[in-house]
Amino acid sequence: MTEKHIKLGLFGFGCVGQGLYDVLNHSEGLKADIEKICVKDKNKKRKIASKYFTYDKEDILGNNKLDVIVELIDNSADAYEIVSRALSKGVNVVTANKKMLAENFESLYQLQEKNNVALIYEGSAGGSIPIVRNLEEYYDNELLSSIRGLLNGSCNYILTRMELENMDYGKALKMAQESGFAESDPWLDVAGYDTLYKLILLTVHAFGIILKPEQVLALGIQNITFDDITYAKEKGLRIKLIATAHKVGDKFRVYAMPHFVNKESDLYNVLYENNGVEVEGAYSCKQTFVGKGAGSHPTGSAVLSDISALTYQYKYGYKKLKKMEAYHKGKVDSAKFLDNDFEIKVYIRFSHKDDLKGIEVVSIEEEFKSAKTNYIVANVKFKSLFFLKGNRDSKLFVCAV
Amino acid sequence: MTEKHIKLGLFGFGCVGQGLYDVLNHSEGLKADIEKICVKDKNKKRKIASKYFTYDKEDILGNNKLDVIVELIDNSADAYEIVSRALSKGVNVVTANKKMLAENFESLYQLQEKNNVALIYEGSAGGSIPIVRNLEEYYDNELLSSIRGLLNGSCNYILTRMELENMDYGKALKMAQESGFAESDPWLDVAGYDTLYKLILLTVHAFGIILKPEQVLALGIQNITFDDITYAKEKGLRIKLIATAHKVGDKFRVYAMPHFVNKESDLYNVLYENNGVEVEGAYSCKQTFVGKGAGSHPTGSAVLSDISALTYQYKYGYKKLKKMEAYHKGKVDSAKFLDNDFEIKVYIRFSHKDDLKGIEVVSIEEEFKSAKTNYIVANVKFKSLFFLKGNRDSKLFVCAV
Repeated sequence: MTEKHIKLGLFGFGCVGQGLYDVLNHSEGLKADIEKICVKDKNKKRKIASKYFTYDKEDILGNNKLDVIVELIDNSADAYEIVSRALSKGVNVVTANKKMLAENFESLYQLQEKNNVALIYEGSAGGSIPIVRNLEEYYDNELLSSIRGLLNGSCNYILTRMELENMDYGKALKMAQESGFAESDPWLDVAGYDTLYKLILLTVHAFGIILKPEQVLALGIQNITFDDITYAKEKGLRIKLIATAHKVGDKFRVYAMPHFVNKESDLYNVLYENNGVEVEGAYSCKQTFVGKGAGSHPTGSAVLSDISALTYQYKYGYKKLKKMEAYHKGKVDSAKFLDNDFEIKVYIRFSHKDDLKGIEVVSIEEEFKSAKTNYIVANVKFKSLFFLKGNRDSKLFVCAV
Repeated sequence: MTEKHIKLGLFGFGCVGQGLYDVLNHSEGLKADIEKICVKDKNKKRKIASKYFTYDKEDILGNNKLDVIVELIDNSADAYEIVSRALSKGVNVVTANKKMLAENFESLYQLQEKNNVALIYEGSAGGSIPIVRNLEEYYDNELLSSIRGLLNGSCNYILTRMELENMDYGKALKMAQESGFAESDPWLDVAGYDTLYKLILLTVHAFGIILKPEQVLALGIQNITFDDITYAKEKGLRIKLIATAHKVGDKFRVYAMPHFVNKESDLYNVLYENNGVEVEGAYSCKQTFVGKGAGSHPTGSAVLSDISALTYQYKYGYKKLKKMEAYHKGKVDSAKFLDNDFEIKVYIRFSHKDDLKGIEVVSIEEEFKSAKTNYIVANVKFKSLFFLKGNRDSKLFVCAV
């Protein structure tokens, strides 16, 4: 494979965009230059010369001399337009936009196939951890049974601050935002959506099934209180927002929600803005990857690694997806492989018994009432938890036991 | 890239060879068949049909219909002959033989370049952890500053058993051997040579320098006693055999020796036969990879992953090595980049003061004498420790502080 010198068009110059700029400037061997950066706000002060910037996306999308488009903006609808237009033109794209990817995966996959073009996105899941590429390349013939991860640096930062520094939720969230770890809309982080989007990407590369965000349960940490942290601490546990996709029979259980983890877990010691991913296979056993999950430079460095891969004509092979298609002789209805019909043991903190309405409780194992707080530990029907997803009214905190 | 169905010739059917056989048989998607297995012992009972076996290496090396040769034997001189002959013929090779690779790296690299052929060896370092390929592909433009790892499953198993189960060294070593974690000659494990060979491979892929085993210090755990474990425990530390290669100025400090590690270290909780590797870069910060470092199936699974990569025409790009060569306009004298001239703080347990002869002590920080054991904690000239490498007479236990 020959290495070529490549010209980049960049969309977005926020946290990750600036991180990429720094990392690229200090990279020793990569033959890549940023030709133009498309941004929205004409009045914002920027740390590099104005000649690099444009406010018209056609300056990049219409420029036929660019080799790679790097999409690092916030708005997922705009991002989808940019990425799909670039792919349709046959231009390789690097993105870190997990929302856009998860919401449009099927169509983006088809565009890549149709135009024989590469869309790569290591920076969109697991921060600086090279998890997408490892799932794609290294575990491609491994009988994977489970992938489990702590994928949101912002939530992990909040949970760590709360536990180790006795900080309240609001203050910890504010600090995460000030440190540049949180998304511009913190709701996507704390309600579990960011974790959900990343989980959907990892499920494609681990198991070859494309799930839609609306099919998968995601619960967040937005309602957590000190009572929950104290409950966990007393039992020697920590609360972590964990995404999981694991095989049970022929189907997959895929969801993101807070979990209690004990000291024996490799994820127990993954603290602050770090991410951690555990991959379990029949033969390689369990492997754990830990690294910075948020921040300008770590994510910029993952994006740089993708750009570098393109200089060697890398693209995802989607081997497991294709194997599924080959096995099922055509497009696979992934929903058929998703199992949402099982019981799960959860801790639920609540104010009034009425708040639990809608949750199908099978059996209660613990029940605690006091003037200050109430909780139950119960086996519930997993499916019945869906009404809590993105529910801004409910104040329940639900955590898998 | 097109995928092709490949035919394998296998040398060796020991622990890893049998592991590969199992993993290959249960792999869903890989298009590869073992055509022949070359073994030495005609009388040994084997778990598969005799038609697979040959006792004549020419049956494999002389067979022009094989696509890949997988070399998994013990003897490194024989392995080198097999591998270099295959490469010279233009046949791709997968190996897990770190000793053979480390001892012959320069010539094996040249053979690959000359014959445009692939030699890949993920199973030779870090067990099931995909560290070689990540260093090669993912970190290729990252300004790496340090790589640090616990690379020998057998030593880690022994140290963990000693500490957590109050087992003595001899018994723990015996158990490691019975579990199939130790090399056939345990001296290579416990004296640090196995770790040294792996370190040399990682140094190539992390920093682009080819060091020779004799240039690099390796000290082992063969002299460890309960007194050392107790000393560490009292201070909340664990003893781990750690390989490190890190940049100091323009040079690299590269060595393998026991280290005290504290609870804050990601390597602290890497227990039993697990391996752990920490990679540190200027922008991606620290990333940790943990997984099984020994055992038939985990290593077999790493070998399988290499075979699978060959079906997609993968080969190492040796990007950092080539960058070094380009920068220095030709072959690089790697020894020039190795820094063995510094001071290091170590704990040394000894019986008689005379045993310390040869070690250049700069300053002593702690000194303990008793009827049972003596130790010092001292700053010493690193270079002066070389006489302890592979020294079967010395009973000193040396551990970096």
